[in-house]
Amino acid sequence: MATIEDVARRAGLSRTTVSRVINEHPYVSIAKKKKVMEAMEELGYVPNSAARSLRNQRTGVIAVLIPRVMNPFFSQLIETLEHAASESFHQLIICQTQYSAKKELMYLNLLKTRQVDGVILTSAENDWSVIEEYLDYGPIVLCNEFEERANVPMIFMNQKEAGYKATKHLIEMGHRKIAYCCGRYRSNVANAREEGFKKALAEAGIAFDEIDAFREAITSEDGIDIFNGIRSRGSNRPTAIFTGSDEVAAGIISEAARCNWNIPRDLAVTGFDNQVITELMNPRITTVEQPVCEMALKTMEVMMERIRLRQFTGREMHKFSMKLIIRESTKMQAELARIPY
Amino acid sequence: MATIEDVARRAGLSRTTVSRVINEHPYVSIAKKKKVMEAMEELGYVPNSAARSLRNQRTGVIAVLIPRVMNPFFSQLIETLEHAASESFHQLIICQTQYSAKKELMYLNLLKTRQVDGVILTSAENDWSVIEEYLDYGPIVLCNEFEERANVPMIFMNQKEAGYKATKHLIEMGHRKIAYCCGRYRSNVANAREEGFKKALAEAGIAFDEIDAFREAITSEDGIDIFNGIRSRGSNRPTAIFTGSDEVAAGIISEAARCNWNIPRDLAVTGFDNQVITELMNPRITTVEQPVCEMALKTMEVMMERIRLRQFTGREMHKFSMKLIIRESTKMQAELARIPY
Repeated sequence: MATIEDVARRAGLSRTTVSRVINEHPYVSIAKKKKVMEAMEELGYVPNSAARSLRNQRTGVIAVLIPRVMNPFFSQLIETLEHAASESFHQLIICQTQYSAKKELMYLNLLKTRQVDGVILTSAENDWSVIEEYLDYGPIVLCNEFEERANVPMIFMNQKEAGYKATKHLIEMGHRKIAYCCGRYRSNVANAREEGFKKALAEAGIAFDEIDAFREAITSEDGIDIFNGIRSRGSNRPTAIFTGSDEVAAGIISEAARCNWNIPRDLAVTGFDNQVITELMNPRITTVEQPVCEMALKTMEVMMERIRLRQFTGREMHKFSMKLIIRESTKMQAELARIPY
Repeated sequence: MATIEDVARRAGLSRTTVSRVINEHPYVSIAKKKKVMEAMEELGYVPNSAARSLRNQRTGVIAVLIPRVMNPFFSQLIETLEHAASESFHQLIICQTQYSAKKELMYLNLLKTRQVDGVILTSAENDWSVIEEYLDYGPIVLCNEFEERANVPMIFMNQKEAGYKATKHLIEMGHRKIAYCCGRYRSNVANAREEGFKKALAEAGIAFDEIDAFREAITSEDGIDIFNGIRSRGSNRPTAIFTGSDEVAAGIISEAARCNWNIPRDLAVTGFDNQVITELMNPRITTVEQPVCEMALKTMEVMMERIRLRQFTGREMHKFSMKLIIRESTKMQAELARIPY
């Protein structure tokens, strides 16, 4: 097994420099860091986390708390967080809260028992005053989540803009009666998105009727139920639907096809997250792309800094912009061909 | 916050009994266990893992190592493992190996540093002789993975049967030239599946041509490429394709639709894992359903036993059977209506 001396020899640098890179000492040039990383890669060298842990009281492990891995948005976020963590020689462990405040506390406890160096929260189930207490034991960074009172770094997308732009697009396609779907768990993320949705309607002078709100829409099966509900409504039904999930949108489209509805002519549908399924459905799904990769990189950068400086409190906001991807589920193919997007 | 005394009072049992349930003492009746769990649930009582850890040197945390959370089979497996772990008052942490032997070792190290009580391996990247050394520090259970030489519990599905039955179904549908897809990482799982595929061909007196093998098929994009490869081959092309992944199957079907091919008439397609997408595609996808839930429950049961008895070595095999779900991607709708399945 390769030693730290082997790495130093291969990189043509001193043992001290190699050790500094491994322990993320801030004053090492990027060129040297790169050389050390390449040498480590070539030799298959694995830093001894136990030894490192004894030296600096760290575990080299970051916990990321997510509601469920089965949600493709979160599994994609994890994928990118993992890459960013590896680059900083940290291991990522993933903890599912299942939207349970109790489970969230149990995982936050890993910080207290020093089993992890830091916690990334992608969704907060407890009141901030409860979460805040854990800042005595290590850094907490919010990623994808926003909390008015939080005195920690927050990395999130502009959800209001997303709700606004997707809805504005539907209005521009001529729709005046637009339904709204969201999940059953309330969060600042969902609230901001709905604010944007309603802002677009208000600007166009369209009133929103709560009968057009579906507030328990998470899976493709929910999408199937929503479609059948709309179908049975007769003349008073919406002509377009905004969803907060590509799975819900896919469920609607799949069931509509079985009932011989034409999407988007009979019902225009928008998804959310630009998951793989949006390109596999027929028609392909108009959706919101989140800058997941950029958000993950920024999250890990901020986390590493907080660990290094042992500075656990301090508000810091990083707001990212979204991109609307227009496809055939809202725009006829002929129109797409005519109007470049 | 509720205390252990509150739980005892609510359950109408002694403090000792409650404590035994929490610490998974083996000699507590199921009825009492149930009463205690209900009382804990009602009072929102969370066992203090730090205190428990001091008493019995345990963390209450189990690590499950998976290749990637983005693979829906693994995210579904995690979901069920998590439920089983919660019932035993254990926390699950998820670690992605990204098919890297080095990362696998780093996560196995959590056992050595006593950050977790046990490790579940859902896929093994290192040679068994390397993994075996970690058994000095705690239990390792293989789930979904099989290893000839492993002296630990193994919970897995009969992959050979899966390859065999899906292929036999294609042969029964009249196909004589059947292509084969698998991922690029070799494993005992993939090998057994291919064995079953080839056994079905051999029984029907069909020779397999390596030109019909696609050995880097993981994502829906791979499926699109595979379809286009087949399409360009002219008369010598397969009439059916066995895939080891619903995503690959969905990619093939989606691209085939864009090229106006009729599935299954022009190409019959089987998927693997019975993911949500199999029911959303048009036609719906014939696939193999793994008994994920049963496998997860058995895995956690065996893990708890090993932790309790502090018995880390000892071979134990639990082989589960699969179910072939026949849908329109291999069988015309008219045929499906005629022949009940």
